Amino acid sequence: MRPQILLFGDSITQQSFRSGGWGAAVADIYSRKVDVVLRGYGGYNTRWALFLLHHIFPLVSATPPVAVTIFFGANDAALLGGTGKKQHVPVNEYKENLRRIVQHIKNLSRNTLVVLLTPPPIDQQGRREFARSQYGDKASESPDRTNEVTGAYAEECVNLAKELGLPSINLWSKMQETEGWQKKFLSDGLHLTPEGNAVVSQEVIKIFDEAGFSDLPYDFPQHSEIDGENPEKAFLQQCAAV
Amino acid sequence: MRPQILLFGDSITQQSFRSGGWGAAVADIYSRKVDVVLRGYGGYNTRWALFLLHHIFPLVSATPPVAVTIFFGANDAALLGGTGKKQHVPVNEYKENLRRIVQHIKNLSRNTLVVLLTPPPIDQQGRREFARSQYGDKASESPDRTNEVTGAYAEECVNLAKELGLPSINLWSKMQETEGWQKKFLSDGLHLTPEGNAVVSQEVIKIFDEAGFSDLPYDFPQHSEIDGENPEKAFLQQCAAV
Repeated sequence: MRPQILLFGDSITQQSFRSGGWGAAVADIYSRKVDVVLRGYGGYNTRWALFLLHHIFPLVSATPPVAVTIFFGANDAALLGGTGKKQHVPVNEYKENLRRIVQHIKNLSRNTLVVLLTPPPIDQQGRREFARSQYGDKASESPDRTNEVTGAYAEECVNLAKELGLPSINLWSKMQETEGWQKKFLSDGLHLTPEGNAVVSQEVIKIFDEAGFSDLPYDFPQHSEIDGENPEKAFLQQCAAV
Repeated sequence: MRPQILLFGDSITQQSFRSGGWGAAVADIYSRKVDVVLRGYGGYNTRWALFLLHHIFPLVSATPPVAVTIFFGANDAALLGGTGKKQHVPVNEYKENLRRIVQHIKNLSRNTLVVLLTPPPIDQQGRREFARSQYGDKASESPDRTNEVTGAYAEECVNLAKELGLPSINLWSKMQETEGWQKKFLSDGLHLTPEGNAVVSQEVIKIFDEAGFSDLPYDFPQHSEIDGENPEKAFLQQCAAV
């Protein structure tokens, strides 16, 4: 009944309803207007995401989402020589997988607003500290990700958005503009702190507001519009269309 | 496709996806298993909620929610002599309205788990301070709500749950067991702080877990189950049933 925004991505999407999370912030700001549907899959890369496409976006869907955020790349960019090698996807394949995801969604509905998000930057020192906190002396000495390699994935994500005429959010660049981004925005060198989540929600909401989402109607009357003596009036007026 | 939990209530439900909010915490803990649908209506009492019943819970719904939280009473308990008098609903009518909401949902599906939540306690001093911060000298001197009156609504909510054999959460009592509940759990004498939200999410999740929700299956394979060389295997196994 209500329009839906679907958040499709990896752990940074899956965790986006934790305290201070960007997904919950989007759900909060459009509450009573839009439903936010969480489809985040921790550890997933774009290659595995393709297996989910027809399940998450069935072609027979009666009401396609008004918007979809596609937020992959943090795992695709895992290094072949590191602990996340299973997750690695070559950068060219990453770009083509993203293209297939976008095309599938656009086949459902040309009107769905598709927003591409790049992976956030990597704080390699933060990754090392995190690995040591988890595995002590057994922590691998070789990095699982580097900021430079992740930057190449971010670049291809933005390039694809330009090719396809889609809005994109270059988190990799954006976050690095702030002094101390390593600890301010990242909790373990990769995942987001509440401040890092706020960067994402601000950028996402900016794009959604430009598309007019804040002007969408409330589903039911605001309580200030309800006459205490004659409440049915407000509901008859507004619910007739629902 | 996924089971749904629907949160139906007033502003304390509507605001439950703010940072630290109880609704987002429920969505987070069951992510990849259940979708949490937010149906919170700021300022609403149970009398007005009845107008929404057939829209929010259509009788022809193919898949009724696995669980519904019903969380009203904070506005029903507004005093006739205060600024919220329009919202006031007599306590007996409140109980009967709640009964109608439950019966409607149970008519959809006997198997839907319905959980009743009482309104939280009222900190009258906090309400006064909030009114002065908003309206200065023009703030009304008469209270909009009292803790005692709200307690009578909480009692009827719990009585109804017992009559109908439903689980309930007596937030009014529970919160007052903690020293300093007035400022610890309430931000303006009525709405919840992050700590107050945590009380709600813990109690709600306890009931849902007892009903087996944490044992619900993940919608798609965990990334640890995916063979990097042969990813389709995990998806063929798990997605066949989806």
